[in-house]
Amino acid sequence: MGERVEVLRWGYRKGRDPRITTHLGLVARALGADAFTLAGEDDKELLENLQSVTTRFGGEIETNHVSGISYLRKHVESGGVAVHLTMYGQPYRQAIPKIRRDRPLLIVVGGAKVPAEVFKACQYNIGVGNQPHSEVAALALFMDEWFGGGAAERSFPKAQLIIEGSNQGKIVHDLEREEE
Amino acid sequence: MGERVEVLRWGYRKGRDPRITTHLGLVARALGADAFTLAGEDDKELLENLQSVTTRFGGEIETNHVSGISYLRKHVESGGVAVHLTMYGQPYRQAIPKIRRDRPLLIVVGGAKVPAEVFKACQYNIGVGNQPHSEVAALALFMDEWFGGGAAERSFPKAQLIIEGSNQGKIVHDLEREEE
Repeated sequence: MGERVEVLRWGYRKGRDPRITTHLGLVARALGADAFTLAGEDDKELLENLQSVTTRFGGEIETNHVSGISYLRKHVESGGVAVHLTMYGQPYRQAIPKIRRDRPLLIVVGGAKVPAEVFKACQYNIGVGNQPHSEVAALALFMDEWFGGGAAERSFPKAQLIIEGSNQGKIVHDLEREEE
Repeated sequence: MGERVEVLRWGYRKGRDPRITTHLGLVARALGADAFTLAGEDDKELLENLQSVTTRFGGEIETNHVSGISYLRKHVESGGVAVHLTMYGQPYRQAIPKIRRDRPLLIVVGGAKVPAEVFKACQYNIGVGNQPHSEVAALALFMDEWFGGGAAERSFPKAQLIIEGSNQGKIVHDLEREEE
């Protein structure tokens, strides 16, 4: 199992970011986060959608909305590790082996403008490449490396639906119907 | 170098998908694609933005808009390999070693609804996990695995701007200004 892993979406704007942030939440869940948290504006519908995917496809994820910097600082002050993903950070594959794994991990994923206080509050500012690309891709590559590769292929307990992939396409097991 | 790698965004809708598709284009570029192509609606502005990032951050990427299925079929008929990323496909880490690397590779990234003809036209239907998450994450994880890990950390020739990542944050080299 290991320590708790939480993904914190920094600076969420309901009017502008719902699709990207939904992708972030789904990636967090699919690659093994225990929690997905919004800082910035709240969005109950977005978090409910993530819970609804979890109900259908299995596993558990905590979802919350928090105030932002005070939440991040409290995490660090109480002994947790905070990693901020940014194109201005140190190379992730060099940095990850140096991060201690016996503490809860908070992965902070920013948007366009992340204030300096976030850089300072986190022990690690980590770049998944120093090119402009996507916070969704950065989160996926970071988590995959953190969990040692193949993180997207984990299985989830208590699923109602299980997709069995094949080269021919869709095989869906709807366990609720199969049990009927 | 290796054979040409092209990312094809299937079923692009200008009104709905520009941010996700911009992320796809930036991921394609940052992880080493030679070309990024839209099928569905055209969007000159989106493709110009990708070229503008390339001008500033280096390297080269071809951008095009094509008709869709006839383009895909022609690629396969002329000897190319086509891989469709879908949550209903076979596990990517098992599939990748079986794909021949001496032919141009077309990576087809779908949206919500991809028609059966795409599944049939591609030699490979590949899943990056069988959970709902994000085509941006799927593309990043697939390309990283295809290029053997660390694909996000490649460097780009002829850049105007080079970001040198550090734990303290931003170090930007603006080569045009430094030369002045």
